[in-house]
Amino acid sequence: MTKLESYLQEHREVFEQDLFELLRIPSISASSEARPDVLAAGQWVADRLTGMGLETELISTDGHPIVFAQTPSVANGPTVLVYGHYDVQPPDPLAEWHSPPFEPTVRNGNVVARGATDDKGQMLTHVQSVRAWLATVGKLPIQIKFLIEGEEEVGSRALHHYLPDHTDQLACDVVVISDTSQFGPGMPAITYGLKGIAYFELTLTGAKQDLHSGTFGGAVANPANALTQLLARFIDNQGRVQIPGFYDDVIPVEDRERQNFAALPFDETRFMQRLEVDALAGEVGYTTLERRWVRPTFDINGLTSGYQGEGAKTVLPASASAKFSFRLVPNQDPTKIAAALRAFLQQHCPPGIRLQLAEMHHSPGVVVSLDSPYVHAAATAIHRAFERPPVFIREGGSIPVVTAFRQHLGSDTLLLGWGQDDDNTHGPNEKFSLADYHRGIRASAYLWEELGKISRRG
Amino acid sequence: MTKLESYLQEHREVFEQDLFELLRIPSISASSEARPDVLAAGQWVADRLTGMGLETELISTDGHPIVFAQTPSVANGPTVLVYGHYDVQPPDPLAEWHSPPFEPTVRNGNVVARGATDDKGQMLTHVQSVRAWLATVGKLPIQIKFLIEGEEEVGSRALHHYLPDHTDQLACDVVVISDTSQFGPGMPAITYGLKGIAYFELTLTGAKQDLHSGTFGGAVANPANALTQLLARFIDNQGRVQIPGFYDDVIPVEDRERQNFAALPFDETRFMQRLEVDALAGEVGYTTLERRWVRPTFDINGLTSGYQGEGAKTVLPASASAKFSFRLVPNQDPTKIAAALRAFLQQHCPPGIRLQLAEMHHSPGVVVSLDSPYVHAAATAIHRAFERPPVFIREGGSIPVVTAFRQHLGSDTLLLGWGQDDDNTHGPNEKFSLADYHRGIRASAYLWEELGKISRRG
Repeated sequence: MTKLESYLQEHREVFEQDLFELLRIPSISASSEARPDVLAAGQWVADRLTGMGLETELISTDGHPIVFAQTPSVANGPTVLVYGHYDVQPPDPLAEWHSPPFEPTVRNGNVVARGATDDKGQMLTHVQSVRAWLATVGKLPIQIKFLIEGEEEVGSRALHHYLPDHTDQLACDVVVISDTSQFGPGMPAITYGLKGIAYFELTLTGAKQDLHSGTFGGAVANPANALTQLLARFIDNQGRVQIPGFYDDVIPVEDRERQNFAALPFDETRFMQRLEVDALAGEVGYTTLERRWVRPTFDINGLTSGYQGEGAKTVLPASASAKFSFRLVPNQDPTKIAAALRAFLQQHCPPGIRLQLAEMHHSPGVVVSLDSPYVHAAATAIHRAFERPPVFIREGGSIPVVTAFRQHLGSDTLLLGWGQDDDNTHGPNEKFSLADYHRGIRASAYLWEELGKISRRG
Repeated sequence: MTKLESYLQEHREVFEQDLFELLRIPSISASSEARPDVLAAGQWVADRLTGMGLETELISTDGHPIVFAQTPSVANGPTVLVYGHYDVQPPDPLAEWHSPPFEPTVRNGNVVARGATDDKGQMLTHVQSVRAWLATVGKLPIQIKFLIEGEEEVGSRALHHYLPDHTDQLACDVVVISDTSQFGPGMPAITYGLKGIAYFELTLTGAKQDLHSGTFGGAVANPANALTQLLARFIDNQGRVQIPGFYDDVIPVEDRERQNFAALPFDETRFMQRLEVDALAGEVGYTTLERRWVRPTFDINGLTSGYQGEGAKTVLPASASAKFSFRLVPNQDPTKIAAALRAFLQQHCPPGIRLQLAEMHHSPGVVVSLDSPYVHAAATAIHRAFERPPVFIREGGSIPVVTAFRQHLGSDTLLLGWGQDDDNTHGPNEKFSLADYHRGIRASAYLWEELGKISRRG
C-alpha cells in the first residue's frame, strides 16, 4: 500500500482544489432559478469520473440528472454502490454567513461553504480514493459503482423513479454512503440507524384577502390564529405527539441500546454551550441522545403569515402556512402518519377556515445489522485510517434512499460519516474539516481493500 | 348657498384630479425607504392649503412632518380642528392588486389606490369644502384649523410629542375626522365609539443559529413550536382571551346598545359572501356587530420563522416571531394589558427559549357622547348632503389621536366616515367611491354652516 499512501499524501492539495471547485457551483435543488447550476454540478461530477477512466453516464430525468459510473466487475469480489449527492440546501439566512456560501473559505482547518459536509465533501472522498487506486494500483480489488444524484435535498424524486427500473445496472452487495457525522472530533462512527421523515406544508385560508384587523378582527376567522391553535395541538406539555395512532408502530427503545448510548462520551453542557442555549427540551423520560436518535419528533420548519416587514401593520391575514416535519423511527409508516395527520387536522380545523395539506417528501427510518461482514470491513478500514475503532451510533437525520436501496436492491448500507455534528449542516456557515476530508479519503481507500477480502455472496 | 353649490358641482373634475395627484405619492410611513415620498405628500398638502390662502406650516419632527394650517378666528363662532393623515399602509401583498397601488385607477365609480379611503380621499373632502367656501363666500362662518400628519399608520409618535406642547395653537371646540366608514352604501354614519389597540411583536430565540432538524430536532427547543404553543394560549375555544385580568376593566355591553345594533340592516349572509368565508367566528355569546364594535379581540397580524421559500428545508429555526394586536374597548388600559401580557408570556415561556416582547403603538378606546350639539350639527349636515339621516355606530378600528385630543385639548371628536367597509382598507385594491368623495365634500361644506349656528363655548 506504500505507493497508494504516497499518492494520497502527495495529492492533498489537488484533492482540496477539486472540492473547492465543486463547492463554487450553487447547486440548490429547491430553487428553480438554480436549475442550470444544479446541472453544472452534476456535469462536473460526471466529468471527473470520466476523467478517471470510469464508464460514466449523466442520466437525464424530469428533475435533476443522476450521475452513474462504474469500474469493471471483479470475479468473486463484491460490488459496492457508492451513493452521494451533488445538490445542496438553500443558503438562507444569507446575512448570517461570515463568508459567501458559494466561495469556499478555509478557516481553522475547515472549508466553509454550503455543501461542504452535506454532501459534496463527504461524497468526493470516495471519488478521490478510487482515483488513487487507479493511478497507483491501476485497478480495484472490487467493483465500484457510483450513483450520485442531484435531488437529495428535495426528496430524490427522480432517483426513486429510476431505481425500480434499473436494479440490474445498480445491483450490488453493499451500499456505501458518507453523509453522516462522526460522534465527535477524532471519533469516527458507523451509523447503524436513521430516522425517517414525513414533511408537510399546511396552508390555512380565511377571507378572500387581507382585511383590516380593526374593522373585521374578532368576527372573521384569522388563519394565523387558527394555525397556532392547530399546531399547538400537535405536542403536549410532555413533548409527546398528540396525533392519534402516532406511536402505534414505535418499537420501544431496548435497554441494551440505552446503556450503549449512555456509555458514549456525550457532554451535555458542552452541547448546550455550543448551541448557546441555557436548557434542552424534548420528550419527557428520554435522554438527549435518545431524543435525537431513537424517538420520533415534531418540528416546525417554517411559518409564514400576514405582514412580516418593518414596523406594524394592522392586518387580518387572508392565509397562514407552516412547513413542518415529523422525524420517524424505524417501523413507523409515513403513509399512515400522513393519513392520521390529515384526519386530525380536519377534525380540529375551526369554522371559517379552509385547510390545504401538501405532503412533501417522506421515507421510513432504517436500522442496519451490526453483524454484517461489510460493517466489520468498514470498522477495520476506519480503524486503520483514523487510528482508533469507530463507535456505533444512530442518527436523527433521514437518508430516504437507504430504505429504497434495501427495498429495490436488497442491500445493506454502510453509513460512514466523516462530518461533525457542529458542521452547520443546512444552516449558515456550513463547514467540513479538511483533515477529516483526507482521513475519509484514506479510510475509503482501505475500505476497498478490506471489502476485497470478502468473497462475493452466494 | 347656491353659489357654493354651483362651485362644488363645477369643480368635480378638479377635485378628482387633486385626489389622484396625492394618491400617486407612495407615502408609506412604515418604510424607511419611502421617507422622501412621505415628505413629498406632506409638502403636497401644505402647498394645497397655502394655495387656498391659509396660513400654513410644514412642521418638521424627528419622524414625518405635520401640516398645520388655519383660517382666521371668528368672533363668537366655534373653532374646529380637522384632523387627517397623508401617510398610508404598505401595499403588500403587491401581487393581489389589479392595478398598481400608486396609480389611481377608476373602476365602477371608485378610485382604486393605496390611501384612497384611508385617509387621503376622506381627508381631502374637508380641504375641498374650505376651498369652496373661500372661493365663493370669501370666508368661513367658523374658524377651521387643519392638522394633517404623516405617521398615523405607524402610531403618530411625532404628533403625540407635539400635541401636549401646542395646546394653544391647536385649541378648538370640536375635532372633525373623516377616517371611518358609512354603515353601507348610501347609509352615512356618525361613529361614536372606537376601539383602542395594543400592538406587540414577540420574538422567541432558541439556538444561536438554524440547525438541522434531523440532527437536533426533538432535543433542542424549537422557537417556532414554542411560538405556536404560546400564542395558542391567548384564546380559549370560546374565543375569550386568557390573559389574567384582560377583561377586568371591560364595561359590559348595555342592552339598549345591543338592541340598536340588532336593529341595523346588517346582512350577515352578504357579509360572508363578500369576504368569501363559509362561516363567521368569534367570542361566544356575541353577535358579529358586537364582536366587531364593542368586544375586545386578539389577532395575529404576522408570523415569521425558518424557511419560507419554495420547496422543503429541514431546518430547526433559530428564531420565530409574531406581530399581534389586541383591539381594546373603552376603559381598558393598554399599559395594564401590556404588563399582564408580559407576565403571562414569561410564565409560559418554555425552557431553552429566550423571549423578547416589543411594545409597538397602543391607545385606549373612546366613546363620544351622542348629546353633543356638534354631533347634532354633523347629523344635520350629513342629512342635507346625503339626503338621509346618519345612523349612529361604533367601529373596531383605532384612531389613537382621538384619545389624545380629548386628553390634551379637552375636545369631543366628530367621526364622520365617508368610506365603505368593503373599501379594502389596509388590504390590496383599496378603493373609495367618487360619489361619496363628492357627497363628503358637500356634507363638509354644510357642516361649517351648521357649526356656525352654535355659539362659542362658555
